[in-house]
Amino acid sequence: MSTGTEKQTCENLSRRNLLKGAVLGVAGTAAVASGGWALSEAQAKSCPALKWPWPYEKLDPAKTAEIAHDEYYRLECGASLIYSVFSQLAEKIGDPYASFPVEAFAFLGAGVDTWGTICGANSGENIVTNLIIGPKTNGVELGRLMGSEIMQWYCDTALPDYVPKVSKVKAEIPKTVSSSPLCHVSVGVWMAAAKKPLGSPERKERCARVTASVAYKTVELLNAWKDGKYVTKGVFPAKLYHIDAQGNCDQCHGTNVPSPPMPEKTVKS
Amino acid sequence: MSTGTEKQTCENLSRRNLLKGAVLGVAGTAAVASGGWALSEAQAKSCPALKWPWPYEKLDPAKTAEIAHDEYYRLECGASLIYSVFSQLAEKIGDPYASFPVEAFAFLGAGVDTWGTICGANSGENIVTNLIIGPKTNGVELGRLMGSEIMQWYCDTALPDYVPKVSKVKAEIPKTVSSSPLCHVSVGVWMAAAKKPLGSPERKERCARVTASVAYKTVELLNAWKDGKYVTKGVFPAKLYHIDAQGNCDQCHGTNVPSPPMPEKTVKS
Repeated sequence: MSTGTEKQTCENLSRRNLLKGAVLGVAGTAAVASGGWALSEAQAKSCPALKWPWPYEKLDPAKTAEIAHDEYYRLECGASLIYSVFSQLAEKIGDPYASFPVEAFAFLGAGVDTWGTICGANSGENIVTNLIIGPKTNGVELGRLMGSEIMQWYCDTALPDYVPKVSKVKAEIPKTVSSSPLCHVSVGVWMAAAKKPLGSPERKERCARVTASVAYKTVELLNAWKDGKYVTKGVFPAKLYHIDAQGNCDQCHGTNVPSPPMPEKTVKS
Repeated sequence: MSTGTEKQTCENLSRRNLLKGAVLGVAGTAAVASGGWALSEAQAKSCPALKWPWPYEKLDPAKTAEIAHDEYYRLECGASLIYSVFSQLAEKIGDPYASFPVEAFAFLGAGVDTWGTICGANSGENIVTNLIIGPKTNGVELGRLMGSEIMQWYCDTALPDYVPKVSKVKAEIPKTVSSSPLCHVSVGVWMAAAKKPLGSPERKERCARVTASVAYKTVELLNAWKDGKYVTKGVFPAKLYHIDAQGNCDQCHGTNVPSPPMPEKTVKS
């Protein structure tokens, strides 16, 4: 855990070193590679938020899911998922969790600004796994692969599969399989099955429980990772489809799936 | 700008107050509403990352676009857009920008883990506008509306519309209109027009320039906001379509657009 002195060092160092590289857009230097900014490896070690992996202690998946469910009604899906994990780690560990601006990620709700793109629970779990395990610039792909594994599970699973201790509605909440990580598809499939409008208490409770379900899954995998027992099932779909893609091609294209331009077989010098 | 003492206070306060509310999942308390964690308003003011708006100084859009373009090749679209803005503000202001873990957002590239969901440039610009202007829990919707305005501009504009000083490829890069904020659609439309595969240098340079174009637009709007001259054109699409949606219904549904369940006209007690 950091001290106040370390934090002040972090800021001072980053401001001094930015002149050397970051602001000038000099990518890939030895200094940049070690941290979030243009810090040497030794310097970056004093900045708790810029050093990976972030310290992690195993959490109770059910307790995490309860927090995610309850906070959904204040922060929506994306930020409540982050909050469910980081609020507990802030209490156990302190920084970098305590000073992370979770609430600013409320915009992730409803698929970003209500545009129905990626479900906020999927955005939130990727933020959590990548902040804790670390980014590819730190030499690991595992945060991203765990995020991808959870998205595939989200697509394949009848959700919500978590029932909170205290529900906001009395009616039963149907479970549906989205086959997509997108909010529009996930919510649309559920609305069609449940015959409930977007603004209904049932739809909101459904999304609160979906967020709780994803939070539960995320902590299960992070706990396995902490124990050294996590073997990823995550993949990068672009390697399979030759385009950044979900893999559920016929859900939008019907039977007329276009073929992307393929790589040339001859290697250019 | 914060001092080391303030930061240490931030961490200590957050750990102490978490026991009062945040970890227990008590939402909507007066204490929670003022900051990222369970802090009172006075306490939250000492945490630079948990107080909105974040301090902002006007930036040069072209310089920002150059940084975004160059950093794309290290951080991909989402993180390079954040980096293009925050690296400059870290140099001018320090924290909360200097200690923000930008690199962990590299997973946003290729529409999150190469799943082709929301284009990382759109994720990145929303993170920037919401971190700087602040979230709805802080009483403002403007960060989210600015994010939505930029996504609509992204959909409607022939992109990339920014040409960097030093390109990574010699060939001309076609411009295409995506009509969608999704990576899969945006990249797919461009690949079909350019007849270039996903792994080609031209496709990568195209995405670097799209990121630069969005970075330019983001700083233009933030500068207008700083001058008190920003009047948002952003909307929340769910209010128009009764489902979280992009608005380009026929791009996936063809002529057979489903009708979402509509709100009941009678108000239940």
